[in-house]
Amino acid sequence: MYNAKAYSAASAISSLASSTIARRDPTEHDVQIEILFCGVCHSDLHQTRDEWSNHMPTVYPCVPGHEIVGRVAKVGSAVTKFKLGDLVAVGCLVDSDGTCPECRAGLEQFCPNVTGTYNSPDKHSEGGVTYGGYSDSVVVNERFVLRVPGNLDLAGAAPLLCAGITTYSPMRHWGVTEGKKVGVVGLGGLGHMGVKFAHALGAHVVVFTTSPNKKEDALRLGADEIVVSRDANAMRKHAGSFDFILDAVSAEHDINAYIQLLRRDGNITLVGAPEKPFPLDGFGLLFGRRSLSGSIIGGIAETQEMLDFCGTHNITSDVEIIPIQKVNEAYERLLKSDVKYRFSIDMASLKSE
Amino acid sequence: MYNAKAYSAASAISSLASSTIARRDPTEHDVQIEILFCGVCHSDLHQTRDEWSNHMPTVYPCVPGHEIVGRVAKVGSAVTKFKLGDLVAVGCLVDSDGTCPECRAGLEQFCPNVTGTYNSPDKHSEGGVTYGGYSDSVVVNERFVLRVPGNLDLAGAAPLLCAGITTYSPMRHWGVTEGKKVGVVGLGGLGHMGVKFAHALGAHVVVFTTSPNKKEDALRLGADEIVVSRDANAMRKHAGSFDFILDAVSAEHDINAYIQLLRRDGNITLVGAPEKPFPLDGFGLLFGRRSLSGSIIGGIAETQEMLDFCGTHNITSDVEIIPIQKVNEAYERLLKSDVKYRFSIDMASLKSE
Repeated sequence: MYNAKAYSAASAISSLASSTIARRDPTEHDVQIEILFCGVCHSDLHQTRDEWSNHMPTVYPCVPGHEIVGRVAKVGSAVTKFKLGDLVAVGCLVDSDGTCPECRAGLEQFCPNVTGTYNSPDKHSEGGVTYGGYSDSVVVNERFVLRVPGNLDLAGAAPLLCAGITTYSPMRHWGVTEGKKVGVVGLGGLGHMGVKFAHALGAHVVVFTTSPNKKEDALRLGADEIVVSRDANAMRKHAGSFDFILDAVSAEHDINAYIQLLRRDGNITLVGAPEKPFPLDGFGLLFGRRSLSGSIIGGIAETQEMLDFCGTHNITSDVEIIPIQKVNEAYERLLKSDVKYRFSIDMASLKSE
Repeated sequence: MYNAKAYSAASAISSLASSTIARRDPTEHDVQIEILFCGVCHSDLHQTRDEWSNHMPTVYPCVPGHEIVGRVAKVGSAVTKFKLGDLVAVGCLVDSDGTCPECRAGLEQFCPNVTGTYNSPDKHSEGGVTYGGYSDSVVVNERFVLRVPGNLDLAGAAPLLCAGITTYSPMRHWGVTEGKKVGVVGLGGLGHMGVKFAHALGAHVVVFTTSPNKKEDALRLGADEIVVSRDANAMRKHAGSFDFILDAVSAEHDINAYIQLLRRDGNITLVGAPEKPFPLDGFGLLFGRRSLSGSIIGGIAETQEMLDFCGTHNITSDVEIIPIQKVNEAYERLLKSDVKYRFSIDMASLKSE
């Protein structure tokens, strides 16, 4: 074991604060990574504050962070994929059973024995949980370590590991390709990545937002059009025309209005999970054989595919870089959607702690 | 024009009663059909009583019926597909524009200019509407006339034209094949056809019902198991295990409970449309990339495929044959689900009117 610096929460009502945590020394298949940047995901805030106590109660101390980019600092004796100094990344998963049908299908995110990057029972530490990326280093089995294309800005690459794959995966799954008409509902951390991917995949991209003042930014990110969702006339003009809509809004909103915009066999995928059940009008699905689905992150192979796609198209997240000392403030700003579009923590700032 | 016998409703509160209607003489591409049997669909009742006044107001007199089986009595000069005496069928559609993307994809049910078998503007009759199958004959463009395999019982074949294709189409679309695990929610006119098709397609079939006393019948129809949906324990045992679920229940019920039973990438398709929006829990879709969709009938080519499949597997609907004089009584019994599983009107009874 060795000591790593980290920012952790001691309880649901504690701020994140500097602390020291024990990490395992790399076993033969492990990679030890010096963390350079870690994105701030809304999940980090939920988990830190134990807001998912029904499904995933938080174990304290909690070190969040699952949008990790760094450099290989040490490799286990059997590691073949990476060598010292490689630019690498870790997303939401750090282990899985590797043998179940989901793992064999490359869909580790659905493995019943998956290990999350933080707050997951840690099989290397009896009774312990995994600690995430708000830290100066992390040790991860090479199967769950990804390669970062050298041309990408590292601060902006970090959010690809969650916001990126969360939006890329359903677009690939539901067949977003050149010439398709794609809608993105909500222009936040997830939505802005959705726009970039849909554009790079060759689709005609329409952003739906409640804020007309986001127009310029939406166009800059790759949108072809913007529709203010409160404008019923503007919405009606797009009825029955979308192949795919990515719904990245967690707040309450009328999903039926978007279902009406799908063409025959069109799909709308939720990636922002509404906290409460919402009213669904079944008729909207019947006419046009439309479908509504959900998606969470993606498998390891697809995450690598997404990173390589980002390398080819030079796609990163739009980030505001912060020192880790500002992470509590960043959480408060996150609650007000006051960020364009993702915070990325410069982990060099942790050295001074 | 010629006179045809029919049963029609004169208003939303009228019973169906014997009447005479004018039918066009067959044009060059038309087939005139002597109707032998016509199934009774719940839609007939809704339309006759103007219960869909918001979407599809009823024009009176209304002659319902879109599950038509009969024999070719006359053919237009350019008809190539049929000859006198052929056993044929007509379903929910009698025309479409033939040129739109939906028609070109063989999905005439989604054509924006589709003509329904009854209560649809009739392009052959200025200001008139189409009249359905509660009649001794009908005239239909050969493109919308289907061939009935000779081995099928004709009374039981009639409901294939709506209940049959409505359940067959989504199973084909969502990939029900040998070895798949398929659920059917509700064992009525639609559900019992769903069970027969899923079984014939080689799936493991589980029927969900609120009535334990339907067990024997479900097994007879082809189910491998039955689950009483009110039994939370029994439901839990099937969590995450279904490839496809056909939801054939229009009455209010908890669709989220069924979504939990889907495996990764599983789909649940609504064919019974809940009248009111229902509460949907988005989380159920996210975990497992599950989808919820809707489906209505099927295209002409697929309807023929379904009839041929029925010929091969000797599948018909379980019907109670009634004379047309009992159709009003049958409607009342339909409201109490007092039929196993579909009424089929023996149109010979109309001769005595």
